Amino acid sequence: MPIYNPPIRDLQFVLHDVLKLSQSDLPGHDDLDPEFTEAILEAAGKLSSEVLAPLNLPGDQQGCMLENGVVRTPDGFGKAFEAVKEGGWTALDCDPEYGGQGMPYTMGVATGEMFVSANMAFNMYQGLTHGAYSAIHAHGTDDQKQTYLPKMVSCDWTGTMNLTEPHCGTDLGMLRTKAEPQDDGSYLITGQKIFISAGDHDLAENVIHLVLAKAPGGGEGTKGISLFIVPKFLVNEDGSLGERNGVSVGALEHKMGIHANATCVMNYDGAKGWLLGDLHKGMRAMFTMMNEARIGVGLQGYAGAVPAYQNAVAYAKDRLQGRSVTGAKNPSGPADPLIVHPDIRRSLMDQKSFLEGARALSLWGAHLIDRSHLGNDADAEGLISLMTPVIKGFLTDKGFEATVLAQQVFGGHGYVEEWGMSQFVRDARITMIYEGANGVQALDLVGRKLAQDGGKHVMAFFAMIKTFCKDNAQNEAIATDFIAPLKAASKDLQTAAMFFMERGMKNPNDALSGSYDFMHLFGHVTLGFMWARMAVAAQSGLDTGTGDADFLKTKLATGRYYMKRQLPMTATHLARIQSGAETVMELDQEAF
Amino acid sequence: MPIYNPPIRDLQFVLHDVLKLSQSDLPGHDDLDPEFTEAILEAAGKLSSEVLAPLNLPGDQQGCMLENGVVRTPDGFGKAFEAVKEGGWTALDCDPEYGGQGMPYTMGVATGEMFVSANMAFNMYQGLTHGAYSAIHAHGTDDQKQTYLPKMVSCDWTGTMNLTEPHCGTDLGMLRTKAEPQDDGSYLITGQKIFISAGDHDLAENVIHLVLAKAPGGGEGTKGISLFIVPKFLVNEDGSLGERNGVSVGALEHKMGIHANATCVMNYDGAKGWLLGDLHKGMRAMFTMMNEARIGVGLQGYAGAVPAYQNAVAYAKDRLQGRSVTGAKNPSGPADPLIVHPDIRRSLMDQKSFLEGARALSLWGAHLIDRSHLGNDADAEGLISLMTPVIKGFLTDKGFEATVLAQQVFGGHGYVEEWGMSQFVRDARITMIYEGANGVQALDLVGRKLAQDGGKHVMAFFAMIKTFCKDNAQNEAIATDFIAPLKAASKDLQTAAMFFMERGMKNPNDALSGSYDFMHLFGHVTLGFMWARMAVAAQSGLDTGTGDADFLKTKLATGRYYMKRQLPMTATHLARIQSGAETVMELDQEAF
Repeated sequence: MPIYNPPIRDLQFVLHDVLKLSQSDLPGHDDLDPEFTEAILEAAGKLSSEVLAPLNLPGDQQGCMLENGVVRTPDGFGKAFEAVKEGGWTALDCDPEYGGQGMPYTMGVATGEMFVSANMAFNMYQGLTHGAYSAIHAHGTDDQKQTYLPKMVSCDWTGTMNLTEPHCGTDLGMLRTKAEPQDDGSYLITGQKIFISAGDHDLAENVIHLVLAKAPGGGEGTKGISLFIVPKFLVNEDGSLGERNGVSVGALEHKMGIHANATCVMNYDGAKGWLLGDLHKGMRAMFTMMNEARIGVGLQGYAGAVPAYQNAVAYAKDRLQGRSVTGAKNPSGPADPLIVHPDIRRSLMDQKSFLEGARALSLWGAHLIDRSHLGNDADAEGLISLMTPVIKGFLTDKGFEATVLAQQVFGGHGYVEEWGMSQFVRDARITMIYEGANGVQALDLVGRKLAQDGGKHVMAFFAMIKTFCKDNAQNEAIATDFIAPLKAASKDLQTAAMFFMERGMKNPNDALSGSYDFMHLFGHVTLGFMWARMAVAAQSGLDTGTGDADFLKTKLATGRYYMKRQLPMTATHLARIQSGAETVMELDQEAF
Repeated sequence: MPIYNPPIRDLQFVLHDVLKLSQSDLPGHDDLDPEFTEAILEAAGKLSSEVLAPLNLPGDQQGCMLENGVVRTPDGFGKAFEAVKEGGWTALDCDPEYGGQGMPYTMGVATGEMFVSANMAFNMYQGLTHGAYSAIHAHGTDDQKQTYLPKMVSCDWTGTMNLTEPHCGTDLGMLRTKAEPQDDGSYLITGQKIFISAGDHDLAENVIHLVLAKAPGGGEGTKGISLFIVPKFLVNEDGSLGERNGVSVGALEHKMGIHANATCVMNYDGAKGWLLGDLHKGMRAMFTMMNEARIGVGLQGYAGAVPAYQNAVAYAKDRLQGRSVTGAKNPSGPADPLIVHPDIRRSLMDQKSFLEGARALSLWGAHLIDRSHLGNDADAEGLISLMTPVIKGFLTDKGFEATVLAQQVFGGHGYVEEWGMSQFVRDARITMIYEGANGVQALDLVGRKLAQDGGKHVMAFFAMIKTFCKDNAQNEAIATDFIAPLKAASKDLQTAAMFFMERGMKNPNDALSGSYDFMHLFGHVTLGFMWARMAVAAQSGLDTGTGDADFLKTKLATGRYYMKRQLPMTATHLARIQSGAETVMELDQEAF
C-alpha cells in the first residue's frame, strides 16, 4: 500500500515565510497565525493520510458501478465522505451566510492539496461541488442561494458542471442541448452531456447539475448559451426533496484512471431547470466555475504527484541494488540503496524541486484570488487571470511527468498495479485534459490573456520580477544562484512575448505555433520566481536564526537544483517559439 | 476501433534511398531490390493491419488468465499466431540451417516494426523467442542447437529470458536461484523468477526458458552466474515432448499495460536444466539476448507510437472544433477540423518528425548489426555497441512522449479506453522500464560505452558526423537547414563528452549526474544525423526527378521541423550536464 505523509512543514513555510499570510491586511487574515494554520493543516493531514489515502488504491481497483441506473462508489467512500463533511472540510472557505467557515481560499487550497494527494478521485466529488457552489453564489438569485447553497456547503448535495456533448467540448458554440421556457419561469432541458465527473453517485442525497443549454432567441454560437440549475431531485418549497427530475445516467465511462470518480453520460429528457444568471449569458456564469476549476486542476496536477514522489523516495531508500560509484555506502549489506546512484538522485531532485515550486505557485495563486475577492485588488485579479492557464497547463504537464519519473524509480515494480505507482500516473493524466485541454490553455494564454487590458497584466508580471531582482541584487547569498538565472529566464520570456507582438499581428499562426512552448516558458519563469522568493525567505531564516536550519538549507539546495537544472529549459522553448509558424504549418493535411 | 496503416513507403525510403540496402556488399543483400522488399513489407503489413491490429484493443480488455496453472491468451491470439507462423514470419532472419529464411536482420526490424505497431503484446511472444534463439545459436552446443532451434525458428516452441528475482533486477549479482549439478551433466534449478514475459501461454507446444542461476564454485556476484536451458516439457531423444519439467507459473502480474502478454512469476522447483555456454559465464551469454532485446525494445518504443500518431491524425482531420485563426477552412461546416489549429500541428509534427527519424535510426542500427555479423565489420560492431543504450533509452522515452501527445489530441475521448489511445500510452510505458530501465541504459552509455576501447567508438561517431557535414557542405539546399544545426548539436555532444572526461576522472558523480541528459543529447544528435541523411536522399531524389515528389518534399519539411524544433533541446541537456553533480548529490538522504 502506498504511503502518504502530509507536507505540513512545507505548507507552513510557504504560507508564513513566503506569503506572510497573517501579516496580510485582508479581512480575516490576522487570525491566521502559524499556530492556528498548523492546527488546521494537521487535522486535514490526519484525515487525508488515515482515512482517504488508504481508500485510494482499492478505489482504483474496484471503480464505480452503474446498477439499475444508480451509481455505486467504491467500498468505504460513503463513510469517508461523512467524515469529511463532519469535519467541516467542505465548508472551509465558503460564505458563513450559508454555513461556511469563511476562511480564505488560500487555506482551502492548502488543505485541498492534501485531500487530492491522498485520493484524487474521491476529492473530486467535493471539488466539483465547490465549483458549482461558487457559480450559484456569484450568479444566483437570493432564492436560489437559500435553496441550494447551505446543502452544497455541507455536501449533503453535490454539484456538477455539464458542458461537453458528444460532438463538442472546446467549441461550445455548437452545443445542442435545448432549454424550452415554461409558463412558471422554469425551463425544460433536453439533450445529452458526456464526461460529467461525479455525475451521479451514492454519497449525497441530491446532485445539483449546472447545465449549459440553448434557450430560444439567443442567436448562433456561444452567444445563445445559458446556464441552468437542474437538480436530480426537485426541491420542494420547504427545502425537502420532491420527485425525481428527468435526468438520468446513460452510462459510466471506462477510463484510464480516476476509476473511483463516476464519469457519466447524462441524459436530460425534458428535465426541469432554472436559469442561473442572465439569459444567453451562460458562458460568463460558467467561467466563474471554469476559472476556479482550472486553478483546482493545476492543484491536482502537482498534488497527485506528491505521494508518487514520497513513495519513490521510500523505495529508493529501501531497495538495495548496485554499489555507489564512489565506494559502498552500505558495506554491511548486499548492495547500496538506490538513492546513492546519481541518476536516481537526478530523478528525485527533478520531482522534489518541481513539487515544492508548484506548491508555492499554487498557494501564491490562491492568495492572489483572495486579494482579488476579499481585497478588491484589480491588479491581483488581472495577474491571476493571466496566470490561470499557466497554473493549469504547466503544473499538470509537469505533474504528470513527475509521476512518470516516480514510477520509473520502481523499475518493473512500478508497472505492476499492486504498488500503486501506475495509478498515480493514470490519475494524473486526466489533469492535462479536462477543464480545457492544455493546448486550449496555451491558446487562452497567448491568444487572449497576453493582450488583455492592453497587455497590462503581463507587463505588471515583468515589472514585479524586475523589482524583485533589484531588491535582492545585493543579497550575496542569493544573487548568483537565484537572481541571475531568474533574470536570464525572464529575459527569454520577454523576448518571446516581443516576438509574438511583432510577428503575431501579421501572422497569428506565428504566435499560436509557439503558444504551448510559451506556456511552459512562462511556467518555468514563474517557478524560478517562486524558488527565488523561497530562497530569500530561507536565507533570511538562516541569517536570523529562526526556523529549522536543516529544513532551510535543504530548501536552498533544492532551489539551486531547480535554477541550474530546470530553468535552462527556457532557452529551448524560446528557440522553438522563434522558429515561428513556417515548419509547423507547412504541410498539407494530406501529407500527415 | 483504432486504425493502423503500414508505412510501407517510408520503410522503403529508408531501406533504399537512405541505407541503399541492395547496393551493400553484404552476403544476400544483392537480392534485396526495392520490388522484392516491397513485396515482403506489403505481406507483413497486410498481416499486421488485417489480422494483428484488430486483436489489439480486445486483447487489452480481455487480458491473460491463469486457470489451473495454465495461462490462456485472449480470444483470437491462437489463430493469429498460427497465421504468423504459417507466413514464415518467425523464421525471416533466422539461420537457414535451422529452418530460417536467412534474410538480414534489417528486414526483421522493418517487418517487426509493423508487427509491433499492430499489436505489441502479441508480438512479444515471438520477440522473446527470437532472443532466446539468438542466445542458443551463439552459445549452444551442436546438440542443443539441433534440439531447440528448428522448433524455435518456427515458434512451435517459444522462448523466455529469466533474469529478475523479487529482490534483484539490475543488480543480478545478488540472485539466489541455484543450479545443482547432476551426474548426467544436467542441473537442477531451484528458485523464483519474476516479470517473465510470455512465461507461459497456450500458443505453443513448449516454452524454452533461459534461466540465470548460480552453480557451485563460481564465487560471489555476477561471476558466479551461469545460463541454463530449462524447457517446460522435457524433450525426448527423438525430439518429441516428454514429461513436464519442475517449472510452474506462480502468478500473473496485473500491469498497467501489455495486458495480452502473460507476465509471469515462474517457480523453479528442482527443474531440470542444461548449461548454455560456459560455466560461470552466464552474463556474457545472456548479453547476447539482452543486446538484441534492447534494440528490439527501442523498436517497440517508436513502433508503438506509430498507430497512436496515425489515429491522432485521423481524429484531427475528422473532429470539427473551432475556427482557424486565419479564417474558416471548412466554411460550409459547423467548424473547422482540429488539424487547422497551430498547436495541434505542433503536436502532430513533434510526433511525425520523431517517428520518421526513429524509424531511420532503428533501421540504421539493424544495418550496423548486419554489417557486424554478416560482414565481420568491427567498426560497425563498436558503433552499434555504443548506440544500443541510446536506441533503447531515447527511442522509448520519446516514443512514450509521442503516445501521450497523440492521446492529448483526442481531448477527453483520449482518456476513455474505448478509443484505444490510453492503451497506446499504457503499453508504451513498459518499454522505458524493461530490458534495463532507461537510467541503467544511461549508466551503460556513460559509465561503460563511452570509454570502451579507449573511446574509439565515440570518436568514430564524431568523425562520421564531421565527414558527413563536410561532404554536404556545398549542398546548398541542405547546408543551412540541416548541416548547420547538426554541426551545432554535435558540438554540444562533444562538449558534454569532454566535460565527462575532464571531470569524471576526479569525481565520477559529475559524469553520472549527467548520464540521462547525455543519453538524450546523444539521441537528438543521432536523430538530427538521420534527418540530415534523409534530407540528402530526398533532395537527391528531387534533383534527379526520381521518386514521388510530394513524398520527398514532405520528408524535407518534416526534417526541417525536427532541426528547428527538436534539436535545440541539446542546449538544455548540455546546460544540465555542465552543472555537474553538486546540486544532484548535495542533500542528505534524510532531506528527501
